Parts: sequence; structure tokens; C-alpha cells
Amino acid sequence: MTNELIKSWVESANAPNCAFPLNNLPYGVFNDGSGARCGVAIGDFILDLAQVPLKSANHDLFAQPSWNAFMDAGADIWAAFRDEITSVLHEDSPPAPAWLVAQSSAEMLLPFAVTEFTDFFAGRHHATNVGTMFRGPDHALPPNWLHIPIGYNGRASSVVVSGCSVRRPHGQLKGPQDELPRFAPSMRFDFELEIGAIVGKNSAARLSVDEADDALFGYVLLNDWSARDIQAWEYQPLGPFQAKATATTISPWIVTKAALEPFRTSTPERDFELLDHLKDTGPMLYDIDLAVDLITQSGAETRITETNYAEMYYSAAQQLAHHSACGCPMRVGDLLGSGTVSGAEKHQRGSMLELSWGGKDPLLLSDGQTRSFLEDGDSVRLSGRAQAAGYCIGFGECLGTITPA
Amino acid sequence: MTNELIKSWVESANAPNCAFPLNNLPYGVFNDGSGARCGVAIGDFILDLAQVPLKSANHDLFAQPSWNAFMDAGADIWAAFRDEITSVLHEDSPPAPAWLVAQSSAEMLLPFAVTEFTDFFAGRHHATNVGTMFRGPDHALPPNWLHIPIGYNGRASSVVVSGCSVRRPHGQLKGPQDELPRFAPSMRFDFELEIGAIVGKNSAARLSVDEADDALFGYVLLNDWSARDIQAWEYQPLGPFQAKATATTISPWIVTKAALEPFRTSTPERDFELLDHLKDTGPMLYDIDLAVDLITQSGAETRITETNYAEMYYSAAQQLAHHSACGCPMRVGDLLGSGTVSGAEKHQRGSMLELSWGGKDPLLLSDGQTRSFLEDGDSVRLSGRAQAAGYCIGFGECLGTITPA
Repeated sequence: MTNELIKSWVESANAPNCAFPLNNLPYGVFNDGSGARCGVAIGDFILDLAQVPLKSANHDLFAQPSWNAFMDAGADIWAAFRDEITSVLHEDSPPAPAWLVAQSSAEMLLPFAVTEFTDFFAGRHHATNVGTMFRGPDHALPPNWLHIPIGYNGRASSVVVSGCSVRRPHGQLKGPQDELPRFAPSMRFDFELEIGAIVGKNSAARLSVDEADDALFGYVLLNDWSARDIQAWEYQPLGPFQAKATATTISPWIVTKAALEPFRTSTPERDFELLDHLKDTGPMLYDIDLAVDLITQSGAETRITETNYAEMYYSAAQQLAHHSACGCPMRVGDLLGSGTVSGAEKHQRGSMLELSWGGKDPLLLSDGQTRSFLEDGDSVRLSGRAQAAGYCIGFGECLGTITPA
Repeated sequence: MTNELIKSWVESANAPNCAFPLNNLPYGVFNDGSGARCGVAIGDFILDLAQVPLKSANHDLFAQPSWNAFMDAGADIWAAFRDEITSVLHEDSPPAPAWLVAQSSAEMLLPFAVTEFTDFFAGRHHATNVGTMFRGPDHALPPNWLHIPIGYNGRASSVVVSGCSVRRPHGQLKGPQDELPRFAPSMRFDFELEIGAIVGKNSAARLSVDEADDALFGYVLLNDWSARDIQAWEYQPLGPFQAKATATTISPWIVTKAALEPFRTSTPERDFELLDHLKDTGPMLYDIDLAVDLITQSGAETRITETNYAEMYYSAAQQLAHHSACGCPMRVGDLLGSGTVSGAEKHQRGSMLELSWGGKDPLLLSDGQTRSFLEDGDSVRLSGRAQAAGYCIGFGECLGTITPA
């Protein structure tokens, strides 16, 4: 692996800080008015796979507007295709501008059909912060947390792509002082900054951590919208349900494991050695800078969070190994949310719940407004990038705007 | 609706106690060696839809070996098709034995593609029993339980059809006396007697209880295999995960809402009035007798549970209304487990956990063996039937056999 930019005949891909240089090549589904189809981001453009005479992969793999069939084709095809696209777009190859569609003229769609969605809880600062608020500082981290990547099954039907509006949910609410619950719009609607890992391989048996890493195809940004007041009343004893089922927004470009290879980094030091089936076998997290901007209806932007994916206590490979431990079949298109990525410092917290400490310490925005939780008209934009010496790997944006209940 | 048997030219369908009289007409997918395809049970036979010149429904709806496309066609097609099949098989119609396949010569497959799986916890006796064991009698029923149908998202990939063996899961285990967890086969592997409700309609918005009832297509028996020792260690704070993801077995025939219409019955009297969006609007449970047989490796059978679906505190329509309350999109093929059906008496309990009271009071089997939880080689068979004066509606069997870890 190189730390150098690989130059393309697509000039915009060679610009400093371009999110989509030739080193990246993330996979998406777009519609420029001529139908939804698969494409690869390069600079300001999308390589339209329907136009490219491919050798490494059969065009049938792209017959549907989703990357599921390609993922199912296996890791050899993943590698050969990436090599071919790298070559096709390389500065030494003949330019083929007819194969490009401007990103500005295309709408991005969900890049894959989400088979099932699992959301983990693998950020130690997040778990500690939330645990302190919900259960007090003495019981902040549940006793199992340092031994298992705790997770719950989410709702695949609720996953939407960046740009979709998110309607404030109704739900059953009951505050500690209320005698009875009521059904009303959530007043504590929140975002969660996460990375989503995409499973690219079907399996019917328990996976080792290495096998799990091999089965992962790529990563997206993920916002697990959460209604804290619905959650507080419903989550005992069986976990979050309606609090997390309104919507989950993902970024439109699948950044492949191959593109992230130079950014591998290790999980933090552990309090307890993990059991063998979950032990780290190499660096399986990634050094990805993450940020959250809150944009009010007037357009005022405030950078409210800056953190890094390397904060996680468990890698996606460890989460997938745990997920399959009981024999649970995993399938192409399964989406695993990392859990909220929060750092140790206040400005590194990945949710309003933590940033405003449950509403006790509202956030001051750039236009002078304050926020404890999200208001109608607010937009939340997640961004992520892995920075090398000569280039960066961007994720594109993950944006959602709250509409009234 | 009539309480009378509707007679068919298929003689075996007219026999007393036949599970599949003309009043039933459950939908399945079978393979007699000539490929998997859709069929309707009648007496000892399956009506092979590929052979029937249908007027009410396009054969394209049955192009795939699943009932999803038919469900998606909508309630008018559901009704017209049922009318046509009733007429085709009626004793007044000309017999067409060439359209029949003997059930004894066919293997049954999953009747539909399970889109997502949600498991509820709506049996009051079960919730009280389990709550007493896990949290003590004073905190047995969680405070939200009488106000919301508590549920969690399960794992659709783990759903299998009756007859599939179920491998004892490995998992992370830690008893209250253990210093550290270990990874080992579950020693407290259990069944749960449930009814599964199948969603037959896509929706993107909140459903009323009436709309939810209209969106339900049919019902199956469901065994939510559960590893109690994995569950005890993992389930706080986000609910059951690997404890419930090894397998969930369903019976192969979808018994339609139409067939169950004469058996509608009301939910029990309530301690608290439900909020408007969950209120009963009519009888939406069903009077279905349920039983569980445990069969040891030697073949000895013991009837260990007899109860009734009418024990549930919430109907599937109420569960679906709640499920959609936050705007969660629901889809054709979503499967909703009722929660374990337990009655008030000891012999009416729907899990080993309750029957053996957490292992403190082992069950005596017909061959003199005792059981606290399931052992390798044990088979669990669920059965269900709704009994009218002149006929009954059977569900077929829901059977699974434990193989070693």
C-alpha cells in the first residue's frame, strides 16, 4: 500500500482534499434521469458502469440498482474489479469522458438492499456517558460490556439514504413524574454518529474474527436516529424498539475495505482479555476522522462533534464474529452499526444526549440558538475521511432533516 | 361464517378431525421432486397451483416458491382466490385428482420469504413467570408491560421450517458465581411456544389497530428457540441477541385470517385502559388450542404443555399497530412472534424455563427421564387447532430436533 495519490485522467480526482481520488473508488447507486444504476465515484463524477466494457465482472452483476449481486460474487471478483476500475481511470489510460456522469446532476439512492440491520454499542465513552445518565455512575458500564460487543437487532426497513427527510416520531412517553403514559411526538429526538459495516458474504456457521473481517465488504457513515423519551419508557427488559425504528440514514457511497486498508489501526487496550473467539488478530479498526454539523432551518451551521472511529472498543470484525457465534446465519447486505462514536472530550461526543448531558447543558449554536435535542427543521450532517500523506478517502455526506411529527 | 364443515370431493378432507378441511385451505410451498412450488393443503393432499387453471389470480404470483408476491397482490385478490379454490375443491365441482400431490410424498419448505422478524412478549403469565425468576416477584411485570406490547427485533435469517434440525448454540456464558465468562455450548437451551403473524401489506405510515388487522395475512406456529444462559448474561441493557438467533422454527402452512374468522375472540380484561392508538376495536385474538410434545431420542413422547392463543394480552393487530407507531415501515413477509403463550396453570406453560421453574423442578417424561432444559436428540413438536362444531382448522406440525453443539 502506498501513501501517495494515484493520479487519474479525471482531473478533479487529483485535487488536494478531494473525497474521491482514484485511491478511493467507492460504490453507489445513482439516477441522472435515465434510471437507477450502479456507479463508482471519481472526483466530481460518477463512472457509469453501464457504459464501461468490463472484463473483470459480468454486467449481470449490475442488472439491479444495488451492489448486492456484486458483493455475492466474492472477494476475488471484488479485487479484480477494483484493479480494472483503477486501471480504466488511471492517468496512463485513455480518457473516456463519455463514461462519466456529473455528481451534481445525479440523485444518489441506497447503494445496496439492506438485508437485516444490527446496531452495536461498542463506543466506551458513549456507553459510559449514557449508562451514567440512565443508571448512575456506579452502574454506567454494564458488567458484560467489556467481554461482549453488546448489540441489538434493528429494523432494516427503516434504513434510508442521505438526503431523505426524517419525520419526528410519535411514541408512547412516560416521564418519571407522570402517572400514566401518553402518545405524543418525541420531544427528545436525537442523532447518533456511527460507522456502518456491510457484510458481503453469506455464512451459515460461526465465523472467526479473521473470517469475519474477510466477509466484510465496506463501510458507510450511519446516523441511528433515536427518540430518547420513547427509549427510556420502552427499553426494559427487551431493549430499544420503536425508539430506533423511525429511520437510520446512511451515506450513499460504500467505501470498500480495500480503500481503507492503509488506515487500519488497533482497538484500545483492554481491561479484560477477550475470549479466544473474539480476540484481536490484527488491526481491524480504521483511523477515520468523523464530524457532525448541525444546520438550523435558517442555514446556520455549527460543528458540534469531532471524533475518530478508532475510539471503538470492538471492531466490526469482532462484532460480526460475535453475531455469528450462536450459529446465526449472516447474509450479503447485512448492515452492522458500530455504535455511537464518542471521544473522551465533550466536543467529541456523538449524540445530543451526551453533548447536552440529557438536556442539562444545552449546546450553543453559531446563530445564538441553543439545543438540547433536535428541533423541526434541523439538519444533521455526518462526514468522515481517512487522511493519508498524499490523499484522503472521503465518505460523502450523510444528511437528514427533521420534519414535524 | 358457518360452523359447518364444507365438503370437498377430496374425501380425506371430510374426515372428522382432519386438520385441512375445505374450511381451512392453508398455503404452503412444497417439493415432490419436481421443484419447489406453491400449494394449498386439502385433506391428505396438496393442491398443486401450477396445475390449476386459475381465474382469480395470475400464475405469475406463484412464479417464485413463496407466497410473498400473492400477499403483495392485496386483500381483494386474497378473497377472490380463496373463493375460487373453495369452489374448485367443493364437492359440487368436478373432481380433478391430477391436480393433487400426496402430502406424504412432498417435502415442505418455508412458505414465504421472511422479510424481518419481530418477537413480542405479550403473554401475561409468561412475562410474570420469567420476570419472577429473573427479577423477583415484586418486579415481575415491568411497569411498561400493561401499556405497550413489548417486543424486540429478532433475526429473519434464523427462521427455518418445521423438520429442520437445530444445532445447540455456543455462546458466552457467565453464571452469577463465575468470576469470568466462558465460551461454551448452552446448557439451558429451551423452546418457546408462540403463534407467528404474517404481514401481507407494505406500509410506510402509522397503522391504526383496524388497519393493522387488515394488513395481516395469516398465522403459523412458531418456536422461538432460546438459550437461557446466553440470554441471562447478554440481555442487559439492549435485550436478547445471540440467545434468540440460532433458529426460529415455523410450521409450513400459512393459516389465513379468513380461515380463522369464526374463531375470533377478545383480549382479556385490562388493568389499565390502553391508549387510543392501541385500543381493541373488536375481537382480534383467536381461540386456538395449542400443545407441545417433547419426544426423546428413544421416541418416547410426553405432552408437556396445553394452552390457548386467547391467553395473550395483546393481539397481533395491536402489536403491529405499536410496531408502526414511530413510522417504522412494515413490509410484506414481516413475521411477528406473539410471545410465549402460557396459561395460568403449570401444565399450560409454554417454555421449559417456566415448566421446570428455571431447573428447580424438573419435568418427568413418559419414559422416566427428567428434563430441566432440552437435551441433544430431543425433539419439540408444537401443534395447534381451532375447533368448531363441525370441523377444525389445523396448523400442521412445527417440529425441531436438537443436534449436538
